[in-house]
Amino acid sequence: MKVVVLVGGVGGARFLLGVKAALGLSPVGATPDSPHEITALVNTGDDVWMHGLRICTDLDTCMYTLGGGIDTGRGWGRAGETWAVREELAAYGADPTWFGLGDRDIATHLVRTRMLRAGYPLSEVTAALCHRWQPGVRLLPMSDDRVETHVVADIPDGDSVERKAVHFQEWWVRYHAELPAHSIVPVGAEESKPAPGVLDAIAAADAVLLAPSNPVVSIGTILAVPGIRAALRETKARVVGLSPIVSDRPVRGMADACLTAIGVETSAAAVAAHYGPELIDGWLVDDEDKAAADDPALAGIAVRVLPLLMRDLPATTAIARAALDLALELRER
Amino acid sequence: MKVVVLVGGVGGARFLLGVKAALGLSPVGATPDSPHEITALVNTGDDVWMHGLRICTDLDTCMYTLGGGIDTGRGWGRAGETWAVREELAAYGADPTWFGLGDRDIATHLVRTRMLRAGYPLSEVTAALCHRWQPGVRLLPMSDDRVETHVVADIPDGDSVERKAVHFQEWWVRYHAELPAHSIVPVGAEESKPAPGVLDAIAAADAVLLAPSNPVVSIGTILAVPGIRAALRETKARVVGLSPIVSDRPVRGMADACLTAIGVETSAAAVAAHYGPELIDGWLVDDEDKAAADDPALAGIAVRVLPLLMRDLPATTAIARAALDLALELRER
Repeated sequence: MKVVVLVGGVGGARFLLGVKAALGLSPVGATPDSPHEITALVNTGDDVWMHGLRICTDLDTCMYTLGGGIDTGRGWGRAGETWAVREELAAYGADPTWFGLGDRDIATHLVRTRMLRAGYPLSEVTAALCHRWQPGVRLLPMSDDRVETHVVADIPDGDSVERKAVHFQEWWVRYHAELPAHSIVPVGAEESKPAPGVLDAIAAADAVLLAPSNPVVSIGTILAVPGIRAALRETKARVVGLSPIVSDRPVRGMADACLTAIGVETSAAAVAAHYGPELIDGWLVDDEDKAAADDPALAGIAVRVLPLLMRDLPATTAIARAALDLALELRER
Repeated sequence: MKVVVLVGGVGGARFLLGVKAALGLSPVGATPDSPHEITALVNTGDDVWMHGLRICTDLDTCMYTLGGGIDTGRGWGRAGETWAVREELAAYGADPTWFGLGDRDIATHLVRTRMLRAGYPLSEVTAALCHRWQPGVRLLPMSDDRVETHVVADIPDGDSVERKAVHFQEWWVRYHAELPAHSIVPVGAEESKPAPGVLDAIAAADAVLLAPSNPVVSIGTILAVPGIRAALRETKARVVGLSPIVSDRPVRGMADACLTAIGVETSAAAVAAHYGPELIDGWLVDDEDKAAADDPALAGIAVRVLPLLMRDLPATTAIARAALDLALELRER
């Protein structure tokens, strides 16, 4: 079975653990003899240059999580991380100081940056890094082109504020998404192309899942790459999404701040309606949101209700299995 | 008093501590009210790109030593260093693995590389880094241009050897200078220009000292930058060198391997003759080498004999004072 999953960072990476387990693969690491193939299309709109290093937060979170290198408590960065470089950069007064670059993590960025500067595309660089981590899932950046999500907000500047565009990471990490966003723009998306393998994977898929990742800056950014929406419409596979909202609150992160910025209510039904029946065939919502199943705004979308919190691996596996089952069931109709 | 010192790495940095102390400056850190000005012209021929980072070994050794950040036991790198990044780079199989890049040290290289890529010349980058370290000496790279010392040697390649040019660091660090060098070439030197301030500092100097650094790959490389030799000939200051050889052995490092490569005997007298009376006016040798004082090959060079091992700061200070005294004495003749 061939499964394609659109993912962002922490939530997407954890969901992938469940998809692997649901297909009988070892959740962490590779399962060489499995007949199943999972391809993750990973958001790169959060990627950023810092201290001369190219940082791909979502790709790395997926790679570390699936390869067994993640700090499981924090959800991002490396287990056993140390912070000597960060401390020294601060001693030099090198900006930015608000982004936590760990020592072990920096090695990944050094290898990546060196390869990018040597001319390798991000997809090949990612494959090279995964040669070490063996995530057991093919991790594809949504695009090899530079796409960076910028947020327009009122940014503090001394005693005043200035309305300006800042990199998503600055808005998210530095300001904790607390400054209301006037707009969120995936800069460069319009001119970008899907990375090699992305469209083929969608075309060959038996099921396509949208992880319960941020519908604006993770899934939304992937969908902003020209060609990906069309491929999702054309594939014979059914597309099933998982609500990132439970009881009108984001399961993780600050997706509500992003939804508000694009004028979408923070609810399981509103996110499904935002994706729309032309994109998703099925939608999983939590028991708390079962009203969505009867929401007329979701006509044309098969809604399933189940416990949707990824509390642990068994719960996540059950959720992933329900998503896969729904995709296959809808395909046979 | 204005003093210019030509230096390489560990030995040069330690000698600078003595020069500072001899002039009444605090050996470590800045001495804001001192009337004396010390300018170090630092070899950059050992500089190297590794893992996408620009590493300036001699500049950093001087900066850390004079700024109080050096690992005093090892003589290079940062005190309290950790090695997480190196371990991770090795896990990725990222070459080279034989060069010890510490975590704290990497922060310096990140700041430098970012500034260089942004277009700042190395001399300005060095000044920016020194803003943190306050070495109390003006550290000038010999040149802002890329000069890299390469060594031609018979390099192991599986079961055979191949005669080829490798970066000095590979020959020195990886092969411990144990492979006989057929030639040593400061690649790029011919086309390089002295960094801003270098020629002016030499012209304005009251004394010029050649630290007891490697006469081939440290002092020799600085002298290979067009314009520097001429400036040393033209300045009114006298030039006094310190023998890096005591009792026919290098005081530190493997200078003998370099001298052999250029056909110079490993002796205090031979190095002085190699520099020659057109470059140096005075030469300090150790008590063990007092025969050099009567060596007819050193005609035109004022030789002084004294204990020349930089065992500790008082000994180093006495040596630096003797060098300064000789330079001033020769100037008054």
